[in-house]
Amino acid sequence: MKDKAKIRELINQKSSFLLTAHIFPDGDNIGSLLALRAALQQLGKRVQVAVDDTVPANLHFLAGIEHIKRAEEITPDFQVLMILDSSSVDRIGAVQKYFNEQITVVNIDHHISNTGFGNIQYLDAAAAATAEIIFDLLVELNVTIDSAMANALFTGIATDCGFFKYANTTVKAMEIAGKMLACGARPQEISDALESKSLPALKLLARVLEQIQVAAQGKLAWLSIDEASLKASGASHEDTDGFINYVRFIQGAEVALLFREVPGRGVKVSMRSKGAIDVNQLAQHFGGGGHQKAAGCSFEGSLQEATERVVRAVEEQLRK
Amino acid sequence: MKDKAKIRELINQKSSFLLTAHIFPDGDNIGSLLALRAALQQLGKRVQVAVDDTVPANLHFLAGIEHIKRAEEITPDFQVLMILDSSSVDRIGAVQKYFNEQITVVNIDHHISNTGFGNIQYLDAAAAATAEIIFDLLVELNVTIDSAMANALFTGIATDCGFFKYANTTVKAMEIAGKMLACGARPQEISDALESKSLPALKLLARVLEQIQVAAQGKLAWLSIDEASLKASGASHEDTDGFINYVRFIQGAEVALLFREVPGRGVKVSMRSKGAIDVNQLAQHFGGGGHQKAAGCSFEGSLQEATERVVRAVEEQLRK
Repeated sequence: MKDKAKIRELINQKSSFLLTAHIFPDGDNIGSLLALRAALQQLGKRVQVAVDDTVPANLHFLAGIEHIKRAEEITPDFQVLMILDSSSVDRIGAVQKYFNEQITVVNIDHHISNTGFGNIQYLDAAAAATAEIIFDLLVELNVTIDSAMANALFTGIATDCGFFKYANTTVKAMEIAGKMLACGARPQEISDALESKSLPALKLLARVLEQIQVAAQGKLAWLSIDEASLKASGASHEDTDGFINYVRFIQGAEVALLFREVPGRGVKVSMRSKGAIDVNQLAQHFGGGGHQKAAGCSFEGSLQEATERVVRAVEEQLRK
Repeated sequence: MKDKAKIRELINQKSSFLLTAHIFPDGDNIGSLLALRAALQQLGKRVQVAVDDTVPANLHFLAGIEHIKRAEEITPDFQVLMILDSSSVDRIGAVQKYFNEQITVVNIDHHISNTGFGNIQYLDAAAAATAEIIFDLLVELNVTIDSAMANALFTGIATDCGFFKYANTTVKAMEIAGKMLACGARPQEISDALESKSLPALKLLARVLEQIQVAAQGKLAWLSIDEASLKASGASHEDTDGFINYVRFIQGAEVALLFREVPGRGVKVSMRSKGAIDVNQLAQHFGGGGHQKAAGCSFEGSLQEATERVVRAVEEQLRK
């Protein structure tokens, strides 16, 4: 469903809005929220924005970020609840408490797994980012895209297609990003912010990279992060999210693995493949899942056990 | 001068071409050469390509890379010498020996410092990459851009604007990249290749990141690479070219410095600023130069001396 026109009519009719998006916020949902907020304000609407989580420090550069509130700070006098970038309602956390019979719920998302909740939907699984859909909506609403909105939407698109590097990068995503550039988006500022790392995170990266391991004539490479090293470094679990990319980019590595000890939850394994093996199948074998080139699974037990089992399985696959 | 039409006429009239570009080749000049080579072949021309240097391993993924020859492998029977992405003729190294009265020299470049050499020029300092100019030329020549050519041109644009992150990213660069995507460019393959690192390079990165230093309440951060560590790691000097980015991305760092010991040539200093100080001025003070946000200089003397002098100077500037 792409009820762009219905959303336009609803916005024209109503005066007060709450915008929200998924927990564990990222550049796409925060950028989308801020651009839509600015657009609705331009149309003279009252707008509140809530996210039931902490906004990561690397997104604090976005103009208007201070207007994103926690669920409990919201005044429940809005007529429309617009839910962005959330495949199901539970993804918005405590903001769910504001659901009631009087409000209209609008569901705007690009996840293929969207459950189709809400009274009006604008769903487009072909969009590389929710920001792409918000751009279409802004055109439909005939608002002027200023440099702050352009920066927010560029951030959304760049986040979800890895700065135009991932295979999900579409011609349309690049076209919109180009338009946002023309409207005043500042890619260097965005990339500086998105890629910023804390000093503890960088020191942890250094320590784990020194212990990088390879097998299968260099076709397999992996990193392990134990809880003691993480604690000693002062870095957070989230800081390690991108670490697998360092392994992935080793020349000759067909398969990259990242093993992370999570206290009380065993070992989290991330897997990347350049195509030589199907890591989705591999992850499924261990009770996880994902895609052919990017997947993951979890283990109860020690870091060493998890490492041995997965490494052995990948070696076998690579031998075939 | 943008003599697009004259270049088209010349190509229509002549049958045999030598294409070349600057030494220390990169994604832009190699991508531009390969796309132009394919275009001329499509038009039924005989084409040789020479670069007086080793093509970096991370560009070997480009289709047709094996057709790039060294200067001495060229048969001197061509009528036209097309020089790409080279601000002056000395940048093409030994390929200069093929200059003579009989050939027509075409100069295609985007560097603002281009000396304007050659018989026909297509110079556009507003272009983010030479690949952008080659795209325009391919349109002028009315050739069909296949997926290999698209991949080569996307590589050129992505290289020179840092995958659309640098401040030189233009709307036109993004538009052309979008068109190349539509023609079959594969951004993930390109980014995987461009960002690939050797295991020794990664181990060296780990070692130097562990010794990252900060001053001025975290506003200044720097890395030093001594020759002994470099040799011990098995990495090459070129491997360290991107290391300054790790310093640049530290949260709170306004100025990033990279000190590299170069045997027999003293210490090479790279400087990056987010705007708090003008590193061009700073570099000029030490006999170097560059831009406001990216500059460099060289020192005779030890790594320690160079570090002390530059760090002190930056601290003074930051105190102002």
